[in-house]
Amino acid sequence: MSKPRQLKFGAMVHGVGHGWGEWRHPDAQADASTNFDWYKGQARLAEAAKFDFVFIADSLHIHEKSSPHYLNRFEPLTILSALAATTSKIGLVATVTVSYTEPFQVARQISSLDHISGGRAGWNVVTSWLSGTAENFSKSEHPPHAVRYRIAREHVSAVKGLWDSWEDDAFTHNKQTGEFFDRSKLHALNHAGDFFQVKGPLNIARSRQGQPVLFQAGTSEDGRNFAAEYSDAIFVHAESLEEAQAYYADLKRRAVGFGRNPDDLSILPGIRPIVGRNADEVEQRYQQAVQLVSIEDAIGALGRPFNDHDFSQYPLDAPFPDLGDLGANSQKGGSDRIKQQAREQNLTLRQVALDFSRPRREFVGTPEQVADQIQHWFEHGASDGFIINSLLPDGLKSFTELVIPVLQQRGLQRTDYSGSTLREHFGLAFPVNRHTAVRLSAATKVTDAEQSKVPA
Amino acid sequence: MSKPRQLKFGAMVHGVGHGWGEWRHPDAQADASTNFDWYKGQARLAEAAKFDFVFIADSLHIHEKSSPHYLNRFEPLTILSALAATTSKIGLVATVTVSYTEPFQVARQISSLDHISGGRAGWNVVTSWLSGTAENFSKSEHPPHAVRYRIAREHVSAVKGLWDSWEDDAFTHNKQTGEFFDRSKLHALNHAGDFFQVKGPLNIARSRQGQPVLFQAGTSEDGRNFAAEYSDAIFVHAESLEEAQAYYADLKRRAVGFGRNPDDLSILPGIRPIVGRNADEVEQRYQQAVQLVSIEDAIGALGRPFNDHDFSQYPLDAPFPDLGDLGANSQKGGSDRIKQQAREQNLTLRQVALDFSRPRREFVGTPEQVADQIQHWFEHGASDGFIINSLLPDGLKSFTELVIPVLQQRGLQRTDYSGSTLREHFGLAFPVNRHTAVRLSAATKVTDAEQSKVPA
Repeated sequence: MSKPRQLKFGAMVHGVGHGWGEWRHPDAQADASTNFDWYKGQARLAEAAKFDFVFIADSLHIHEKSSPHYLNRFEPLTILSALAATTSKIGLVATVTVSYTEPFQVARQISSLDHISGGRAGWNVVTSWLSGTAENFSKSEHPPHAVRYRIAREHVSAVKGLWDSWEDDAFTHNKQTGEFFDRSKLHALNHAGDFFQVKGPLNIARSRQGQPVLFQAGTSEDGRNFAAEYSDAIFVHAESLEEAQAYYADLKRRAVGFGRNPDDLSILPGIRPIVGRNADEVEQRYQQAVQLVSIEDAIGALGRPFNDHDFSQYPLDAPFPDLGDLGANSQKGGSDRIKQQAREQNLTLRQVALDFSRPRREFVGTPEQVADQIQHWFEHGASDGFIINSLLPDGLKSFTELVIPVLQQRGLQRTDYSGSTLREHFGLAFPVNRHTAVRLSAATKVTDAEQSKVPA
Repeated sequence: MSKPRQLKFGAMVHGVGHGWGEWRHPDAQADASTNFDWYKGQARLAEAAKFDFVFIADSLHIHEKSSPHYLNRFEPLTILSALAATTSKIGLVATVTVSYTEPFQVARQISSLDHISGGRAGWNVVTSWLSGTAENFSKSEHPPHAVRYRIAREHVSAVKGLWDSWEDDAFTHNKQTGEFFDRSKLHALNHAGDFFQVKGPLNIARSRQGQPVLFQAGTSEDGRNFAAEYSDAIFVHAESLEEAQAYYADLKRRAVGFGRNPDDLSILPGIRPIVGRNADEVEQRYQQAVQLVSIEDAIGALGRPFNDHDFSQYPLDAPFPDLGDLGANSQKGGSDRIKQQAREQNLTLRQVALDFSRPRREFVGTPEQVADQIQHWFEHGASDGFIINSLLPDGLKSFTELVIPVLQQRGLQRTDYSGSTLREHFGLAFPVNRHTAVRLSAATKVTDAEQSKVPA
């Protein structure tokens, strides 16, 4: 009997939370975003529940109206390196932009995290959507949306090339002969593109998982194609089962179009489950979560996909304003969807804002109800797993302690790790070094040629 | 009775070692440079001996003739973040270049390390001397030596400005009123210079030590002035007591010239002690260390301060070649000294190369002899402490277990930490945030004005 297909789980560890008001919950630690003990505790909860990975989001530009979480928080690669030392199996996924970094530095730091953690690193590739970021990085302007995806392709391709600088068996460490490495297995990259020139080689070996796992979160046309071509996993926000199913089918189809096995691309919607032991507790916890979202905070949060647009200038109960092109050069996929929904359903600004920030009903319920919902999405072409973006201070704790055991009983979630790298958790094959592949293919050709000489 | 002046100690944790051949020692771990357990063990040895800090060196350009240590190693900020999680008191000093980074990213990652570690971060500011680095970072050319120091001044000043984005008491976290922070205590930087434009503010608060501690290693004229103006500590290579004394006096004088208290600038020569329990063991261990340096490796190592110049083209036993300007745009201070010494003492290339790489006799001996030497330098105007750059695989272990207790008995080295931040270990005052200082000074003026109204 073969094992049923397994869910994949990630924990978004988010300090004081994604929303504007979550830090005001009576049990919330207001300093969570720079509290190492808090991060350590969340990562351990996720590892105890045998999650595949913890996920650290990021952004690079703040102003005085930014959400509390953005204002003061750890940088992803440093906090994940610290978490590598306090966990042993769980994957560690860092959000790092391509628009304001150099491939050499990104390749090196993520690979270093990969070595520190014994092969557990992942890179969530983002292009940065707030134009103010340019002003922090000595740039005269923020690159337009389409250019950002051209940058992303070139950046990721250079990083992946650098990660193959050393073949897996390059380091011979022969103390007798003094040969530290085999020179034929070290390769310069010599990348010369439109945006980056990177000679290489990288000054760090391949890790135990060969190359770190790639994540992306694209919803625009450019974003979807980029994700389908390069990503091992996609973090997506889905409004409904139907929307998730459409996205899932579309991305798998695109992956096939790029010559890939669609099973190698995991689609992971971000969800904010609220779990209670019974109907009363569920409703009480849900109302607590709703009350954490004030209309002022919701108006602030709504601005973000529109390049931090100030929505407080419009009347709350009039129809959602006509914004023209606003958002198209920012978070294009997300802002397009908000505009479309407001137009189709004839919503007011207040409705759109609260709908954007308030918790949904989908994954709210008793442990069995939430598990049912998860199983339903998983078995009806909507997801390969989920990224848990907790809303209440004890959200990850209650999900891992109450819902995960139900899913484990159903055989949908592992009860222990079978591998030790993130790639192994995901069931992905070890990527053969490109130079080793050439070597092997040349060797095969020689063998073929040799064989053809043999008389029949 | 006041406590005698205390030594400061740093441990350079260097994987397979600074030299070309150290990995060939029978007890050496050939994979040490990417072995997290090895780094963890070294950091714990240093912390058990109550060292002030561990120090991670760095470089960004390799080629097939680079030293084993450069080829494959951890990136400093990631490995130090991991060490932050496995230590509790010792300082964590990361080498990060100013020539190929943006101030926003450097300020953020070092501050994140500072928060993770509870105020134990330090930044060793380097300008990168290998011209090949440019080719890894999409740059058409490596900036000339003098320009690199102009970049350094502007970069460091922007980073320090970003570190003051938030006043220490900016985060009010008032759950009742919903005030997460006091807007009057958030400050944009608005830096617009010759090399960098950085608006800010930084998206992370000040840490427990206010600002990370600054290190530098300048020996050229530009380097000395930069170090004397900005650094809290200087890592210096000294050939002899007299040279160390001259450097020490010069740097302290320059610090005074910049209006600083010379005690706030620690001069820390890097030394490679070899310790044995008796004269026989000392000689045996010294000879072991000498034998690890082959003439081929010494020739390779010598090239580095000269922009990885290939010295194997010259006859070994002829006088040291005339190199003209070579090295002046690379490691200027170091290469100038080598040329001057070769000329003055009429040395051959073989002599210069072996002298450059072989261990010196100064800090070789029994625990008491090495402690005597350390005390002599410390008490005769040559150093405020030392950075231990171990040569043998058990070098740090034997130094901390054999020499440190002798220094502790003499009252020169702490037997326990009295503070918990690197700044406290160094006895440096907490730096007042520049905006808080303006506020306080304005308040004082108001008070003075108020008082002047009071009739006498």
